[in-house]
Amino acid sequence: MLEKIDLDKKLSKKESKAVIEELSKRLSYLQRACKTEQIPITIVFEGFGASGKGTMINQLIQPLDPRGFMVYSIQRHTAEEVRRPYLCRFFSKLPAKGRITLFDRSWYRRVLNDRIDKITTKEELECAFDDINNFEKLLTDDGMVIIKFFLYITKKEQKKRFEKLMKSKETAWRVKARDLRQNKHYKEYLEMNNEMLENTDTMYAPWSIIEAMDFQYAQVKIMKNVVARLEEELLKRKEIAKAQNQVTRIGNTEVVKATYPNEVESIEEVRTHVLEGIDLSKDIRKKDYKKKLQKLEEKLALLHSDMRRKKVPVILVFEGWDAAGKGGAIKRLTRNLDPRGYEVNPISAPGDIERAHHYLWRFYNTFPRAGHLAIYDRSWYGRVLVERVEGFCSEEEWKRAYHEINEMEEHLSNFGAVIIKFWLHIDKEEQERRFKARQTNPEKSWKITKEDWRNREKWDEYVRAADEMFVKTSTTYAPWVVVEGNSKEYARIKVLETVAEALEKYLS
Amino acid sequence: MLEKIDLDKKLSKKESKAVIEELSKRLSYLQRACKTEQIPITIVFEGFGASGKGTMINQLIQPLDPRGFMVYSIQRHTAEEVRRPYLCRFFSKLPAKGRITLFDRSWYRRVLNDRIDKITTKEELECAFDDINNFEKLLTDDGMVIIKFFLYITKKEQKKRFEKLMKSKETAWRVKARDLRQNKHYKEYLEMNNEMLENTDTMYAPWSIIEAMDFQYAQVKIMKNVVARLEEELLKRKEIAKAQNQVTRIGNTEVVKATYPNEVESIEEVRTHVLEGIDLSKDIRKKDYKKKLQKLEEKLALLHSDMRRKKVPVILVFEGWDAAGKGGAIKRLTRNLDPRGYEVNPISAPGDIERAHHYLWRFYNTFPRAGHLAIYDRSWYGRVLVERVEGFCSEEEWKRAYHEINEMEEHLSNFGAVIIKFWLHIDKEEQERRFKARQTNPEKSWKITKEDWRNREKWDEYVRAADEMFVKTSTTYAPWVVVEGNSKEYARIKVLETVAEALEKYLS
Repeated sequence: MLEKIDLDKKLSKKESKAVIEELSKRLSYLQRACKTEQIPITIVFEGFGASGKGTMINQLIQPLDPRGFMVYSIQRHTAEEVRRPYLCRFFSKLPAKGRITLFDRSWYRRVLNDRIDKITTKEELECAFDDINNFEKLLTDDGMVIIKFFLYITKKEQKKRFEKLMKSKETAWRVKARDLRQNKHYKEYLEMNNEMLENTDTMYAPWSIIEAMDFQYAQVKIMKNVVARLEEELLKRKEIAKAQNQVTRIGNTEVVKATYPNEVESIEEVRTHVLEGIDLSKDIRKKDYKKKLQKLEEKLALLHSDMRRKKVPVILVFEGWDAAGKGGAIKRLTRNLDPRGYEVNPISAPGDIERAHHYLWRFYNTFPRAGHLAIYDRSWYGRVLVERVEGFCSEEEWKRAYHEINEMEEHLSNFGAVIIKFWLHIDKEEQERRFKARQTNPEKSWKITKEDWRNREKWDEYVRAADEMFVKTSTTYAPWVVVEGNSKEYARIKVLETVAEALEKYLS
Repeated sequence: MLEKIDLDKKLSKKESKAVIEELSKRLSYLQRACKTEQIPITIVFEGFGASGKGTMINQLIQPLDPRGFMVYSIQRHTAEEVRRPYLCRFFSKLPAKGRITLFDRSWYRRVLNDRIDKITTKEELECAFDDINNFEKLLTDDGMVIIKFFLYITKKEQKKRFEKLMKSKETAWRVKARDLRQNKHYKEYLEMNNEMLENTDTMYAPWSIIEAMDFQYAQVKIMKNVVARLEEELLKRKEIAKAQNQVTRIGNTEVVKATYPNEVESIEEVRTHVLEGIDLSKDIRKKDYKKKLQKLEEKLALLHSDMRRKKVPVILVFEGWDAAGKGGAIKRLTRNLDPRGYEVNPISAPGDIERAHHYLWRFYNTFPRAGHLAIYDRSWYGRVLVERVEGFCSEEEWKRAYHEINEMEEHLSNFGAVIIKFWLHIDKEEQERRFKARQTNPEKSWKITKEDWRNREKWDEYVRAADEMFVKTSTTYAPWVVVEGNSKEYARIKVLETVAEALEKYLS
C-alpha cells in the first residue's frame, strides 16, 4: 500500500491555521456527541520511528476534553504481560462506551517490532494477522469505531530527524540504537509494514496512510479523517434509529437511541439434539466412587504441580442446569490442589463497568497466567444461554457470539491454554427433587431462590440454546463434554477423569 | 512474642478428626452467613519457611465454597509493581464485601524478606510498621475482618523439613537457596519476626502464633481461631442491629442488616473560615495572560519531561464548585504535555464493584507509576464533600475519612509522589452567571444539568465541609491551594504557576 503514496504533499502554516480551527471545533462537538451516543472510539497510531506519532497524538487531543480520553504508549511487554494471552493487555485498555483511547503503537507490535526482536514466533505470526482482524471485527461489531493511522516518512527524512534529536541533550535519550538500526534497514522495515497494512486493511477498520513529511499536512489529514469517521458513524446511527422510530426531541436537539446493527448471518435451525441422547441412568457404586475419587484427586494434584512447573495455562468452564452439581464437582476438582495455583471465577450478571464494555471484556481480565488453572462457574457462554433465552441481548448479538467465542478460545489455545468445557446435565425431574431437598435442608435452603423455580419454566428453550451451543462451539481446541449428572458421584468422577486425561495427554 | 511459645503441643490424628469435622461444618456455615452479612474477610499467613503455610491454607479452604474465596501467593514485586506505591498491589487483591481472600505471605514482606533482600530502604522501614497498622485499621474500620497467623517452627525442625523436600525430585525445586540461608541465620530471622509481631499486633488485627511443629495441632488451632473470629463478628453485628431494631425474620432465620459501627472521634466545630477570606477580585490583564500562559505551558512541558526521566510520580487533585473552571485549568495544564506521560481521571459516583470495597480502593487502582502525572477531576475528597453533605455515607464514615486520607497521602508521599490539591473557588453569583451563560450557549448547554442547580441550594453546607476539609487535610506533604477563580484567566495562571514551582523545587 505504501508504494503509491506521494510524500511531497505540503500545507503552509497559514493555509492550515483556519482549517485546524474549524476542525477543532467540530472534533470538540463530536467528542460530546459520541459520549451522548455511548460510542467507544479507539484511535491507533503506527508508523516509522520519528515520523511524529507523539506530536500528532498531542495535536489531535488539543480540542478534546481531557476527562474523556486516555493515551497509551505500548512498549515491549512486561514480564507479567508475557505470561498471559496476547490480547489481554489491550483489552484492559479499551475505552468504555462514550470514551476515547489513543494508542501510540498497539497490538500491531506483534507483527512489527516483536517480529524484529524475535519475540513473535513463526507459529504465532501465522495466526497473528487473523487474530488482529478478528479482534478488530469483534469490537466494531459491538459498536466501537476504530481509526488507524500509519505515519510514513522517507529514509532520508527519518535520518535527518534522528540526527536533529541526537544533537540536543534534552532529546538525545529518545533515540535508541534500535531506531538507528531501523533507519539502516529501512527497506526491509518498509516491506514488513507493507505486508502488515495489506493484511489488516479491512472494511470495518481501514488504515489511513499519513504522509508525515510535512507537519501541517499530516495534522490536517488526521483531523479530517477522525471528523469524517465520527460523523459517518453518528449519521449511520441516526438513520438506523429513525428507521426504528427511536428519535426523540429534547428542546432543539434530536436525541437518537440506537443499538448498533449488523447483518445477522442466516443460521439454519439446529437439528442436532445433543442433550436428548444423553443417558442419564449412568451411575457408580458408592464403594467404587470413594476409591476412584481419592485416586483421581491425588493424580490431579500431581498433574497440577506439573502444569505449574511447565507453565501451562488451563481453563475449565462449567455450565449446566441449576442444581446440576457444578459447585460439588468444582470442589472435588480443587480439593487437593495447591490453592496458589488456581482460581475459581463465579460468573454472575455483569456490573455497570462491565456493561460499558464488550461482553467478553471482563473475561479477558481474568484469563489465567501461564501455569495457572482458572475455573469458571458459568462463563462467557451466558451470552448464548441465559442472555439469549431471557432476551438480555439482541438476537443479532447472541448469533454473532458463537464465532466470537470460537475465535477467543482459539486465541487462548494458540497461547498454549488447555480448554475444557463441561455441561452438567440432569433431567427436569431430578432438578425438582434436588430443589425440594434443598428447601427442606436448613443448611442448603440458601441455595434456592424464586428465580431458580422460574428458570425451570423455560427448560425447553434452554435445551434448544444448549444444543445449538454444542454444535457451534465444540472445537478441537476447546471441546464440550456433556456430563451425565443424575448421579452426582458419577458426574464428579467423569469431570475429574476428563481433566486428568486431558492434562496427562498435554503434559506428556 | 515468640519466646514464650511452647512448641511441644500435639494432637493425635484420632483426637483431631472429630473436632475438624465439627469445625468444618461451622466454617462452611460461617462463610455463607458472612456472605449474607456482606462481611469482607482477609486471612494472612506468615511464618518460617517450610512451616506449612501452603498446607494450612489448603486445609482451611476445604470446607469453603471455592466460589467465595481467592488465594494469593505474594512473591517479590514485579517490575511493574515496584513502580507504584507499595500498598497498590495489595489493595487490588482485597476481597469485596462478602468474600474471602487468603494471603500466603502478604504486605509483611516489606518488613521481612524485602528487608533481607535490601529492597526496603532504611527510610521506608521507619514508616513501614505505621503504614501496615494504618492500612489494617483503615480496612477493619470499614468492616473487614483481618485474621493473621504466624506459623512457628524450630531451627531443627525447619532443617529437617528442607532436607526431606530436597530428597524427592518432585519437591526439591521448592527449596531455594534463600530458604537454606534462612535456616542458617535462624536466630536473626527469629528476631526480625519478633520485632514485626510486636509492632503490628493490634486490637483490630491481632496476630495468632501457631505452633506448627505438629500438623494436627496447627490445623485445629487455625480453624478454631477463624471460627471464633467470625462468630464474634457476626454476634457483634447482630447486637448492633438489634440495638438499632434492624433485625428481621425470614422463615426461621434472623436476618440482620447493620452498618459497622465505630467510635466517632469527637471533633470540635471548625472555626477557621478559609473560603471566607479568599479575595475573589483577583484578575489578570488579557495581554499578560496570553504571554504568561504560553511561557508556563512551555515550562511545564520541560518539567514534565524531566519528571518522567527522573521517575517522579505526580498527583494533582482538582476540587471546587461546579463551573469553577476545573476542566479549563486541566486543559491548559496538559495542553503542551506528552500525553503518554499523564492521565486525567474524571471521578464520578462509584460503580457497583467499587461500592463493594473500601471507598479508597478505586483510587489505589489509579495511582500513577513513577514518572507519571495523574490528574484527578474530583477525587477521594468526595467522601468529605458531596458524600457528607448529601448523606451518602454516615457521619462516622466521613469523620473517619480525614485521617484515612492523610495517611493515604502520606503513603503516596513516602513513595516519592509530589501531591498538590487545588480548590477552585468562585462565589455564588459568579456561578449563577456561568450557569446561565452555559444554558444559552448551544455548545455548552450540555454541561448544565438540573442537579447542578440543586447543588447550589446547599452552598453553605458545602462551604462548611470545604473549610473543615482544608483544616484537617492540609499537610506539608499534600497541601491545599485555594485558587481565586472568579477570573478564569487568573485561576489558570495560578494553577500552572503552582505546579511549575512545586516541580521545579522538587526536581532541583
